[in-house]
Amino acid sequence: MTIKKKFTTVIKINGVKIGDPKTFAIIAGPCAIESEKQMDAIAKPLAKMGVKLLRGGAFKPRTAPNTFQGLELEGLKIMKRVANKYKMGVVTEVTDSKFLDEICKYTDMVQVGARNMQNFQLLKELGKIKKPILLKRGLSATIEELLLAAEYIISNGNPNVILCERGIRTFEKETRNTLALATVPLVKELSHLPIIVDPSHGTGKKSLIEPMTKAAIACGADGVIIEVHANPKEALSDAQQQLTPDEFKKLLKNSNPIMKAIGKTMQ
Amino acid sequence: MTIKKKFTTVIKINGVKIGDPKTFAIIAGPCAIESEKQMDAIAKPLAKMGVKLLRGGAFKPRTAPNTFQGLELEGLKIMKRVANKYKMGVVTEVTDSKFLDEICKYTDMVQVGARNMQNFQLLKELGKIKKPILLKRGLSATIEELLLAAEYIISNGNPNVILCERGIRTFEKETRNTLALATVPLVKELSHLPIIVDPSHGTGKKSLIEPMTKAAIACGADGVIIEVHANPKEALSDAQQQLTPDEFKKLLKNSNPIMKAIGKTMQ
Amino acid sequence: MTIKKKFTTVIKINGVKIGDPKTFAIIAGPCAIESEKQMDAIAKPLAKMGVKLLRGGAFKPRTAPNTFQGLELEGLKIMKRVANKYKMGVVTEVTDSKFLDEICKYTDMVQVGARNMQNFQLLKELGKIKKPILLKRGLSATIEELLLAAEYIISNGNPNVILCERGIRTFEKETRNTLALATVPLVKELSHLPIIVDPSHGTGKKSLIEPMTKAAIACGADGVIIEVHANPKEALSDAQQQLTPDEFKKLLKNSNPIMKAIGKTMQ
Amino acid sequence: MTIKKKFTTVIKINGVKIGDPKTFAIIAGPCAIESEKQMDAIAKPLAKMGVKLLRGGAFKPRTAPNTFQGLELEGLKIMKRVANKYKMGVVTEVTDSKFLDEICKYTDMVQVGARNMQNFQLLKELGKIKKPILLKRGLSATIEELLLAAEYIISNGNPNVILCERGIRTFEKETRNTLALATVPLVKELSHLPIIVDPSHGTGKKSLIEPMTKAAIACGADGVIIEVHANPKEALSDAQQQLTPDEFKKLLKNSNPIMKAIGKTMQ
Repeated sequence: MTIKKKFTTVIKINGVKIGDPKTFAIIAGPCAIESEKQMDAIAKPLAKMGVKLLRGGAFKPRTAPNTFQGLELEGLKIMKRVANKYKMGVVTEVTDSKFLDEICKYTDMVQVGARNMQNFQLLKELGKIKKPILLKRGLSATIEELLLAAEYIISNGNPNVILCERGIRTFEKETRNTLALATVPLVKELSHLPIIVDPSHGTGKKSLIEPMTKAAIACGADGVIIEVHANPKEALSDAQQQLTPDEFKKLLKNSNPIMKAIGKTMQ
Repeated sequence: MTIKKKFTTVIKINGVKIGDPKTFAIIAGPCAIESEKQMDAIAKPLAKMGVKLLRGGAFKPRTAPNTFQGLELEGLKIMKRVANKYKMGVVTEVTDSKFLDEICKYTDMVQVGARNMQNFQLLKELGKIKKPILLKRGLSATIEELLLAAEYIISNGNPNVILCERGIRTFEKETRNTLALATVPLVKELSHLPIIVDPSHGTGKKSLIEPMTKAAIACGADGVIIEVHANPKEALSDAQQQLTPDEFKKLLKNSNPIMKAIGKTMQ
Repeated sequence: MTIKKKFTTVIKINGVKIGDPKTFAIIAGPCAIESEKQMDAIAKPLAKMGVKLLRGGAFKPRTAPNTFQGLELEGLKIMKRVANKYKMGVVTEVTDSKFLDEICKYTDMVQVGARNMQNFQLLKELGKIKKPILLKRGLSATIEELLLAAEYIISNGNPNVILCERGIRTFEKETRNTLALATVPLVKELSHLPIIVDPSHGTGKKSLIEPMTKAAIACGADGVIIEVHANPKEALSDAQQQLTPDEFKKLLKNSNPIMKAIGKTMQ
Repeated sequence: MTIKKKFTTVIKINGVKIGDPKTFAIIAGPCAIESEKQMDAIAKPLAKMGVKLLRGGAFKPRTAPNTFQGLELEGLKIMKRVANKYKMGVVTEVTDSKFLDEICKYTDMVQVGARNMQNFQLLKELGKIKKPILLKRGLSATIEELLLAAEYIISNGNPNVILCERGIRTFEKETRNTLALATVPLVKELSHLPIIVDPSHGTGKKSLIEPMTKAAIACGADGVIIEVHANPKEALSDAQQQLTPDEFKKLLKNSNPIMKAIGKTMQ
């Protein structure tokens, strides 16, 4: 590949400058929005820790049809109310272009999940809106394909794309995916776009999230997106990989010296 | 996995019984619909060889945004006119649920491409129509995930699903994908659904299509879907893997003894 | 790759011509040599079915150190005695060059296992002997690397190399490996060497061995190597993938029409 | 996996304590030993930077037989003389058990390359010597298999094993391998053994070596092994991934703040 980088894109959401070389962005929240009470119990401690961007899934792309599929529109409204209460920005996933108008009313950034990275029709539609897009790498997508998927959005008119390395599928059984952190410096070479890391899906294992967050900071990522739930054992999805607010607080504390060492501050 | 098979699904399209143990179904046609002249030049010889199902892409999911994206609705109308002329049934890919109504007017079977195998919202919509669905295996989908994707369609009301093994992505560089033919007998054990093989995408190499077609017949596949173009060198996509009508005729002739050996006839 | 094929290599072992376009070679026997009684119980019915080449492992490369490691030299002597009784040729694996002299005394073909495909020092030593070499594809080796591994043996003086496709490691969980049958016609294009298929390791599942054997025949393989054990449930290794003599007899019977269809006879 | 960790193994080589929680070990040197002049030109600046462990290949496991295969015994003698001159310890690869006695005379640590990780016979022999073993992960080995390979050495009598994550083979084309850094904290959970990282083979790209070294430090690795050559363009192997001494010096300087941040010092 010989894509040339001429400038650096910085995307501002709720005061957080994603892509800014002096900033490390934190996005946190549950896998799925389950209820207003659940969202409040998560957002409250996160806001207190200084987290300004809240994630939560309302339309859930689940492997099996008989599992929890998300609260859909109702969930979006819940998350927006809770986020407003704590002055947080909101990130949520779109799974079909027909939901896009509704989703845009309640979110500050629209996420494209790994399974939709090459849903080119959806990407074209996302090129026509103004909201920032968080584009996750597909389960077996190459880095070139990730950049070309971003190009679908950009060439249709929306330059505000943030890439996300979330692990690829390999033969390894001990982790849910294989987090390919070399993607971070490689994307920084080949592209002007910000890139963040998802150590929750990238490992699928609580104990690996903190070390992989530190590694992501150290190799130059612009941020992380991490699953946090007040009561992971009772979560309706991804129970094995969601941190409690206390565990997440410890992660931030332990990651701080590495951020400082490379001259970044958390946002 | 312990999915149990209680019966066998046979799906009839334009007289071809896909899933019938005595029949081997042939679907052929170009990667993309390019013009009426192009479609006629392909359909005419195919019909003469006895092929009853014509494939052709109108909405093309291409990796890069600046490549040929298909003739869309206009292409569908062209294919339908040509198919009617030669009394062929039509198979084409849907890439977004919003095109579904229009596509259904012009096609006999709706294809879900590998990149959309886990576009769950699309699968749910396909569960609400009556047309047979050709569901291709995702680039890095497991067999369990393929069966669960089919379950999304079936549990929403449409039992007419045909699975398609089209190769998975591996480290191998000599072939476009790695055609995993063991999927065929495994699906026959785990499921009641028909399964066909796509040796064109499964190998990406002209010379491998005939031997892989023979292997697909021998291991129990219910059919194949093969790319044929009257002038592959000038094709707007997939030039390396499209056979000429003459090459395809030879493939059918050479495959015939194996079909006979296992007691099947071509349809 | 642009390796050119100028001729076809045919290798004769115990009367079986591996690589001959009119012949399909059968190699069968247990995963591991366990005792003289066990070998006799397997070789006797195999010989009766016309099988002329007996496999059996004496030096077993096992993933964990506390598992059965094989009878080593004693095992080789057992297999040779039993093979002589039934006029069969013998194939066994070498795991280190220091055993090579001893192994050569008791075997007609020396196998290089998947884990040793790039044990280049061993390959060089195998280039100095005259015995035919059965070279299995590595777990994540490309086809180019398999051909280059063969070149290590050939360029050191031994042209008698038979390649073996035995599946590659992928993310799929339902099968032990992913049998990449397109390797067969591709090797036939790129090389003059014979290529056989190992559907036992290639699938790891009894029920898939017969359909994959049929597919191997249909796509042009020169033979198969299949694990057979008189009592698979009590086998010291690979219990899930060894066929009983009766199951193997049925496999041969059902494969015969496909061999005939392509003008080959079993040897 | 439920392997339990009861203690922490620390292995001392030439004063460097690999596995010590306060230390980060640096191993550097060329891919292959080419001449005394070449080794001196590399070792001299490395020693000046404080590097105490020198790597260099004498027996080279190359994919193709007609490429440079290493200086063998002569190379070992060269490296030992140069290392003595600069008071450095030496690490080199063994490719066959028959060379082991000779190699042990000239080296302080014996490396098992990725292609030999499951050369079980070699592992057993390494269990009988006293030298520390650097065991590299196989190209498609699981973490469980890496730990079981170490167990082959340990259970045969040699507890001094250092593991090395060097990337796995995937479909990605932009990097030589996919460096799976989550292996580091996972091995720390499952095992008492030290684990280092090889960002040179893990990426195959000069520009990615520094960011991946930083990430390795941040996620808890015990060290790195990095290829350095005084004139990479003229190197007889791995030209794309060898750093010059100056580039390597910059890498150390830039990595230092991260080492400090987690309370480690370079050795």
